[in-house]
Amino acid sequence: MIPEPALHRLIRSALEEDIGAGDATTAAVLTGQETGTAQAAAKADMVLAGMGVFRETFLFLDPDVRFTGCLDDGREIKHGEILAELSGRLASILTAERTALNFLQRMSGIATTTRRYVQAVAGTSARILDTRKTAPGLRVLDKYAVRIGGGLNHRFALYDGVLIKDNHITAAGGITPAIQRARQKIAHTLKIEVEVRNLGEVREALAAGADVIMLDNMMPEAMSEAVRLIGGRVPVEASGNVTLANVRQIAETGVDLISVGALTHSVSAADISLLVSVRA
Amino acid sequence: MIPEPALHRLIRSALEEDIGAGDATTAAVLTGQETGTAQAAAKADMVLAGMGVFRETFLFLDPDVRFTGCLDDGREIKHGEILAELSGRLASILTAERTALNFLQRMSGIATTTRRYVQAVAGTSARILDTRKTAPGLRVLDKYAVRIGGGLNHRFALYDGVLIKDNHITAAGGITPAIQRARQKIAHTLKIEVEVRNLGEVREALAAGADVIMLDNMMPEAMSEAVRLIGGRVPVEASGNVTLANVRQIAETGVDLISVGALTHSVSAADISLLVSVRA
Amino acid sequence: MIPEPALHRLIRSALEEDIGAGDATTAAVLTGQETGTAQAAAKADMVLAGMGVFRETFLFLDPDVRFTGCLDDGREIKHGEILAELSGRLASILTAERTALNFLQRMSGIATTTRRYVQAVAGTSARILDTRKTAPGLRVLDKYAVRIGGGLNHRFALYDGVLIKDNHITAAGGITPAIQRARQKIAHTLKIEVEVRNLGEVREALAAGADVIMLDNMMPEAMSEAVRLIGGRVPVEASGNVTLANVRQIAETGVDLISVGALTHSVSAADISLLVSVRA
Amino acid sequence: MIPEPALHRLIRSALEEDIGAGDATTAAVLTGQETGTAQAAAKADMVLAGMGVFRETFLFLDPDVRFTGCLDDGREIKHGEILAELSGRLASILTAERTALNFLQRMSGIATTTRRYVQAVAGTSARILDTRKTAPGLRVLDKYAVRIGGGLNHRFALYDGVLIKDNHITAAGGITPAIQRARQKIAHTLKIEVEVRNLGEVREALAAGADVIMLDNMMPEAMSEAVRLIGGRVPVEASGNVTLANVRQIAETGVDLISVGALTHSVSAADISLLVSVRA
Amino acid sequence: MIPEPALHRLIRSALEEDIGAGDATTAAVLTGQETGTAQAAAKADMVLAGMGVFRETFLFLDPDVRFTGCLDDGREIKHGEILAELSGRLASILTAERTALNFLQRMSGIATTTRRYVQAVAGTSARILDTRKTAPGLRVLDKYAVRIGGGLNHRFALYDGVLIKDNHITAAGGITPAIQRARQKIAHTLKIEVEVRNLGEVREALAAGADVIMLDNMMPEAMSEAVRLIGGRVPVEASGNVTLANVRQIAETGVDLISVGALTHSVSAADISLLVSVRA
Amino acid sequence: MIPEPALHRLIRSALEEDIGAGDATTAAVLTGQETGTAQAAAKADMVLAGMGVFRETFLFLDPDVRFTGCLDDGREIKHGEILAELSGRLASILTAERTALNFLQRMSGIATTTRRYVQAVAGTSARILDTRKTAPGLRVLDKYAVRIGGGLNHRFALYDGVLIKDNHITAAGGITPAIQRARQKIAHTLKIEVEVRNLGEVREALAAGADVIMLDNMMPEAMSEAVRLIGGRVPVEASGNVTLANVRQIAETGVDLISVGALTHSVSAADISLLVSVRA
Repeated sequence: MIPEPALHRLIRSALEEDIGAGDATTAAVLTGQETGTAQAAAKADMVLAGMGVFRETFLFLDPDVRFTGCLDDGREIKHGEILAELSGRLASILTAERTALNFLQRMSGIATTTRRYVQAVAGTSARILDTRKTAPGLRVLDKYAVRIGGGLNHRFALYDGVLIKDNHITAAGGITPAIQRARQKIAHTLKIEVEVRNLGEVREALAAGADVIMLDNMMPEAMSEAVRLIGGRVPVEASGNVTLANVRQIAETGVDLISVGALTHSVSAADISLLVSVRA
Repeated sequence: MIPEPALHRLIRSALEEDIGAGDATTAAVLTGQETGTAQAAAKADMVLAGMGVFRETFLFLDPDVRFTGCLDDGREIKHGEILAELSGRLASILTAERTALNFLQRMSGIATTTRRYVQAVAGTSARILDTRKTAPGLRVLDKYAVRIGGGLNHRFALYDGVLIKDNHITAAGGITPAIQRARQKIAHTLKIEVEVRNLGEVREALAAGADVIMLDNMMPEAMSEAVRLIGGRVPVEASGNVTLANVRQIAETGVDLISVGALTHSVSAADISLLVSVRA
Repeated sequence: MIPEPALHRLIRSALEEDIGAGDATTAAVLTGQETGTAQAAAKADMVLAGMGVFRETFLFLDPDVRFTGCLDDGREIKHGEILAELSGRLASILTAERTALNFLQRMSGIATTTRRYVQAVAGTSARILDTRKTAPGLRVLDKYAVRIGGGLNHRFALYDGVLIKDNHITAAGGITPAIQRARQKIAHTLKIEVEVRNLGEVREALAAGADVIMLDNMMPEAMSEAVRLIGGRVPVEASGNVTLANVRQIAETGVDLISVGALTHSVSAADISLLVSVRA
Repeated sequence: MIPEPALHRLIRSALEEDIGAGDATTAAVLTGQETGTAQAAAKADMVLAGMGVFRETFLFLDPDVRFTGCLDDGREIKHGEILAELSGRLASILTAERTALNFLQRMSGIATTTRRYVQAVAGTSARILDTRKTAPGLRVLDKYAVRIGGGLNHRFALYDGVLIKDNHITAAGGITPAIQRARQKIAHTLKIEVEVRNLGEVREALAAGADVIMLDNMMPEAMSEAVRLIGGRVPVEASGNVTLANVRQIAETGVDLISVGALTHSVSAADISLLVSVRA
Repeated sequence: MIPEPALHRLIRSALEEDIGAGDATTAAVLTGQETGTAQAAAKADMVLAGMGVFRETFLFLDPDVRFTGCLDDGREIKHGEILAELSGRLASILTAERTALNFLQRMSGIATTTRRYVQAVAGTSARILDTRKTAPGLRVLDKYAVRIGGGLNHRFALYDGVLIKDNHITAAGGITPAIQRARQKIAHTLKIEVEVRNLGEVREALAAGADVIMLDNMMPEAMSEAVRLIGGRVPVEASGNVTLANVRQIAETGVDLISVGALTHSVSAADISLLVSVRA
Repeated sequence: MIPEPALHRLIRSALEEDIGAGDATTAAVLTGQETGTAQAAAKADMVLAGMGVFRETFLFLDPDVRFTGCLDDGREIKHGEILAELSGRLASILTAERTALNFLQRMSGIATTTRRYVQAVAGTSARILDTRKTAPGLRVLDKYAVRIGGGLNHRFALYDGVLIKDNHITAAGGITPAIQRARQKIAHTLKIEVEVRNLGEVREALAAGADVIMLDNMMPEAMSEAVRLIGGRVPVEASGNVTLANVRQIAETGVDLISVGALTHSVSAADISLLVSVRA
C-alpha cells in the first residue's frame, strides 16, 4: 500500500543520511563476521505501523537478514510484546537499527494517536481525517500510518483535491467567484471543498455549488447549526484546533469528517527497542 | 549554518512532494496575476527556528517574493507576534505556504522544547544534547533547531562519533575488547564513548580507556555515584527516559551532558499561521 | 502554470541527454566568442504552446541569452510568423537549439491538434479531455499543452482521480461491489468515475452511486440513449476511438466530456525553425 | 541493446510519474490479494518494439509477475495477435498497465512507421536514418525502436558526431573555415558531416574535406546531380521534408542515407490493449 | 567548454561529499561574520587548468564571493605566482577551500603532464591523445584538462567511437568479421578504429576497411614499418606503455596519434595553496 | 566495509558515464549471444584493493556474470598473478571492463603506495594517515584503499573532525581563541586538532587544550623537540611535504601520526589487464 518507488527512495536516503561515509562504531568494534539475532520489542502500548518499512530498511542494506514473527500493521500491541525477530550479520543489523526504528517509531506513534481519535468518536457518524501538515518528505509514510490507525486520508497534496481556503477566497475576491472559477478549470474527477467561517459563508458556498464544506474553527453550536443548514446535501468537514479533549463534542454536532493536524505535525514516537543476542 | 547543498535539496524535494503535477486550487481560483502581502504570525509562545528555510522555500518557487521584518532564529516569541511579512505574486505565496510552514513549525517546535529543557537545568553544569532519533531525511534541520534552542548536538550520524552501545558490547564480547578494538581502528579525531548500565561497567570502561561515559537508564543515586567514581577524568552523559519532569534531578547528579531523544522524535509543531491580504 | 521544480528537472535532463559530454560540433567550429541573433519561425499554421519552456531551456544553459518578441502560448500562428527572437552567445544558442525546439514543437503540436478537436465540437456542450496516454516523463508538459489548446485535463495520474475501468470491475467482481468498496476508502475530495459498456451497466453504475459515467466505445445511438437515461444526474464522458472525423457526432449525443487519447499518444510536431544571424 | 542503467532510470521515473502517492483506484477497489492473468493484444497491424521495456515495467513494481508467450521485437504483428500473457497479483498489473503500455505503444508506433519507410526504399541503395528530433528524455528508446523497424541511427546526440549545419556555417563564416576548424579539434573517431543547400556548396564541402555530405531540402533533380558530382567519394545524406510519399523518389536519386525527423517527432502510437481475467 | 549541467552536478556532489552535515571546524571557530581575502598560489611550476571549476565551487556555496586576477587555463605558471584572489565571507571560503583545490590541483596536474608529452613530440607530426582511463565520474574534467595541456581527446566514452580491441576481435572471431559487422550497424558519423599487434593484422585491418589503425604495444621498428605499409591511407595511433622517456622515439616512427593512459590514470596533483588574510 | 548505498551510487554513475547511450563497439561487433571467460591479471607487483567494487561493477550490468578465484583485498600480488576469473555474456563483460578496471587500478594503486609508506616506517611508533586530498566523489573508495594498504584514515570530511588550520587561526585571531570557541560548540564525540608551525605555537595549543597537535611543515629537528615538549600528553601528527624519501626520518622524530596527501592526490594506477577467451 506504500508505493514501491517512493518507499525505496525514502529508505535509501534515510540510510545514506545515517551511514554516510560509514558506521564508525560497528567498523571499529565488530569483525563483520559476527552473526546473531535481535528482537524488536514494544516498550509501551501502541498500534503498530511500519513493519514493512522496518523490514525493508534492513534488507536494503543486507538482503540476507531474515525475519520471523513480524506482527501485522494495525494490531494493538501491549507493552513487552515482541514485534519481530531478526537474524543475520550483526554488523548489518546494528548499522540499520536506528534508521529502521526511526521509521517504525514515528509511524506507530501516528497510528496510535490516530486510533485514539477514532475511538473517541466511535458511535458517531464522523470520521477522522489527516491534513498536509506532515514532516517534509515523509508524507507517504505519515498518511499510510493514519490509515493504519483507522483514519481516512484527506487529499495527499496540492494536486489531488481542490480546497479553497481563506487565503484563496481573499485572493479571488469572495467565495462565489472562487467557486465559479474553479468549476470552469478543474478536472471533473475532483471535488471542490470550501472553507467557511460562519453560517453566512455556509449559505454562500452552498449556493455557489461547493461539493464539500469545511467549517473552520467554529464553535460546536455553530457547527450544529451549519450541519442542519446543509442538511446532508454535501459532506461537512470540521477543522481547526481539534484535540482529543474536544473531538467527541465536535463529532456530536453531526459533521461527517474531522481533520486533525496534530496526527502528523505533533507526533509522539512509539517506544520500541531492539535487543541483540550473539549466536552461540 | 545549515549546509547549502543539503538545504537546497530538502526544499526542492518538499516542494515536489506537495506540488507534484501542480496546485489544483491555486491554478483554478487565481488568475496568476494577483499580488499581495502575507503575514506569518505566532499563535502561541515559542522559540523561533527555521526562518531561513521558510524564506528559501518561497524563493525557490519564486525569486521575486520579498520579505520584510523577518525575526531572528533563537528569539523568544510571544503569541500574536508577526514573524515575517511577505509580498509578491499570491499564487507563489499560496502554493509554497504549507511546505514553508511545515518546516518552520517543526523546527520552532523543536527549538521551543529544547529551550525548556535548557532552562530546566539552568545553573547546573549539565548541557542538553540531542540524539539520532530524528525524522528520516530531516536530521540536518532537526539538529539545527536543537542548537537554536540552546542544546548541543551529539554526533550527527554513524560516521562522526564512536558510541559503543549495549548491542555492540554484546557483539564484541564485552566492554574491554570493544574499546580495545575501537582504539586500533578509529580516526584519531574521534573519541570513544561507551554506554554503561552500572558502576561495575563504569569502572571497566574507565580502565579500558573510554573517552566519554554514557550512563544508560540509571537511577539518580547511581548516577551521582558514577559521577563521583569518574571524578572528572572524562565527560559523563546521562541517557534514557529523560523528561522535563526529571531532567533537573538528573542534572543535579553532576553529569556533564544529558541526551533527550524526545527533542526530535516527539516534536510538537509550533502554531504559526499565514494570512494573506490582496494588494489594493 | 507548469510547476517550477518539475520544469527545471525536465529541462536539465533533456539538456543532459543531448549535450552529455559536450557539443562536438559547436566546440569544434565556433570560438565561443561569436554573438548574434536567432529567429524562431513557424513553418506552418499552428497553436503556439511551450514558449516558456523554450525560453527556459536556453536560459538554463546561459542566463545571458536575451529574448524579444516572444508570442504568447495559445495564440493562433500563421506560417511564416516569427515566434521569438534570441540574442547572445551563438555557442549557447546552437547547443540548446534542438532541445528547446523538441519541447516547443511537441507542445505546439499537441495544442494545435487539441484546438482542432475543440473547434469541431464548438456549439455543443461537450468539452475535450486528455488521457494518461502521454510520453513517459513528459505528462506535465503534454497536459499543459492540452489546456493551451482549449482542452480540459482529465486526472493527471493514478493518484488524483478514481476511474474504475473494465479491468478493475473484473477484479472486483462487478460494478456495484467496485463502487461500494471505493466509497469506503477514497479521499472525500475525489469523485468516482466508472467505465460502462452498455445501458445495463449505466443503470448499475448510477444505482451504485457513481459520480461520473464513462461510456466506453459505444455507438452514437447508444450514447444518446445513455445520456437520456442519466438525465443530467452526473456528468457523462465518452471515450474510445475518438477521431476528428467522428468527434462532432459524439458531441451531439449530449455527452459532457469526450476524452481523446490521440491528443498526446499520437502527436504531430509543429514545424518550427531557428535561423541564426551573426552580429555585424 | 538498451543500456541497463538508462532503462532502469526511465522505468522508475515513468512509474513515479503515474503512481506518485499511490494508485487511488486500485487501492480502493481491490483487496490487494486478487491474482489473475492479462493478455496484451494488438488492435491493429504493427511492428512490435519495446517488449523488454514493457516487461521490465511490471517487474520493477512487482518481481513476481510472470510472463509467457512474449513475442520478439521486430516481428510483424497482425490485428488481434496476443503479444504477451502476464500472471500475478492484479493490483500490480493494473497499477503498471498504463505506464507499460505507454512505452510499448510509442515504441511500436515508431518501429511500424520506420518499417514503412524502409519498405518504400527497398531495392535502392538508400538507408533510412533517424534524427535528434525525439521526445525529450526518451531518445534511447526512440532510437532503439528505429533500429527495430529497420532504420539506422544517426548520431545519438551532440557528442557523438560532427554535423555542421547552416547555423554553424553562418557562425563560422563559411563552409571552408568551419570544416578546417573542426578538423583541428575533433576526436579522430568522429567524421565531419556538412549540410549543403546547392551544388556550389557541395563542391566547397568536398574541397574542404567533408567526410559526409548532407543535402538539405534539395529538389530531386538537384540531388541526383549532387550525387553524380560527389561520385562516391563520401556518403551522401538527404534531409528535409521527407515523407512516405516522396521517400522513394529521393532514394532513386542515388543518395546513401535519408534522414526522417517524422519517425520520432510525429509518432502514432500503435494500438495495444491489456485485458485482465481473474484467476478462478 | 565544460558542459554546464555536468559541471554543476560535479561541484554539487563534491561539496556534499566534503561538507555533508556541516563544516564542524568553521562552525566552531568562526562567528560566520568574518570577511577577508585569500590568495591561491602556485607552489611549483605548472600548466594551469580548472580555474573555472575552482571559481564555481566557491560560488556554488556563496554567490557573493568575489574573484580578481584569475589567470587563464592553459597558461604556464611559475612557482610562487598568484593564480587568483578571492574575497568575501571567510566561512564560505574555508568551507569550499579543499573541494575547490582538489579540482584545481588534479586538473592542473593533468594539464602539466600533458604539456610535457606534447613538448616531447614537438616538431614531429604526432599528436598526444588521452584514453578512457580516467577517475570514475571525473572524465569530463580529466579530458578538458588534457585539451588545456595541448592534447587531443580520444573518444569520450563507449558511445562516441568504435574501437575494436583485442577482446572484441576474439569475441567476433577475427579482425575481418569484426569490421564487416561494425560497418553494417554503426552510425555513419563514426569511424572504425581497429587495434592490431603485428604487420599481418595491419594488412588485414586495412583490407577490411578500417578507418583508423591502432598499433598496440609494438616495438618502434615494427611501428615504422606499419606506418610505411599504411602509407597515409588512414590515421595511425600508437598505444601501450607510452612514457615520457619513449614518446619521442614513438613519435619519430611517423604515427599520427599517440595515446597515453598515464595522463589521466596516474595523475600528480599540482601543488597549490590557499592563504587567507582577515579584512582589516 | 564500503557503505552499500554509496557504493551502488558510484558504480551506477561510473557506468552511466562510460556507457551513456550505448556501447557502440560491442553492439556493432558482437551478436550479444557470445559467452566466454575473462581473466584479470596483474601486470606489475601490487597490493590488491577494490576487488569487491570490480565484481559489483560487472554484476550491476549483468547479474549473471560469474566469478571464481577472486583474490582478497590487501594481498601482495606478484606480476603475472591472476586476480579473478569471470564468465558469462561477453557483451556484458566487454562493456563493463574499462569502468571496473578504472576502479580496481586506482584503488590498488593507492593501496600499493600506502603499503610502501607503512613499510618505510615499520618499527617506529608512527602510523601513516591519509588526508581529504582525494579525487572529488571518490573519497569513500580512496580512503578504503588506504586502509587496505595499512594506513589509518584521518577524518573523512569536514563533519567528523575538528582540525584548526592556519587559515582558521588567522580568521579567529589566534590559536587560543580558536580552541576556546571550538570547545564551546563542538560535539563531545569529536577531538580538537590544531595545526602549529613552531614550538611557541605548540606551547600555546597545549595550554589552550588541544586534543591533538599537528606539526605543519616543520624540520625533523624541530619535530623532535616538539615531541619532547608535548611529552605524550596528546597525539602528535606530522604533515606537509612527506615523501617516501623522508618519511622514515620523520617517523624517527617520535611523532604518532604522519599524514601523506600524495597517497590519494597523486595516484599511480596499478597495471591490470583483462583478457577474454570465447567459450568453445
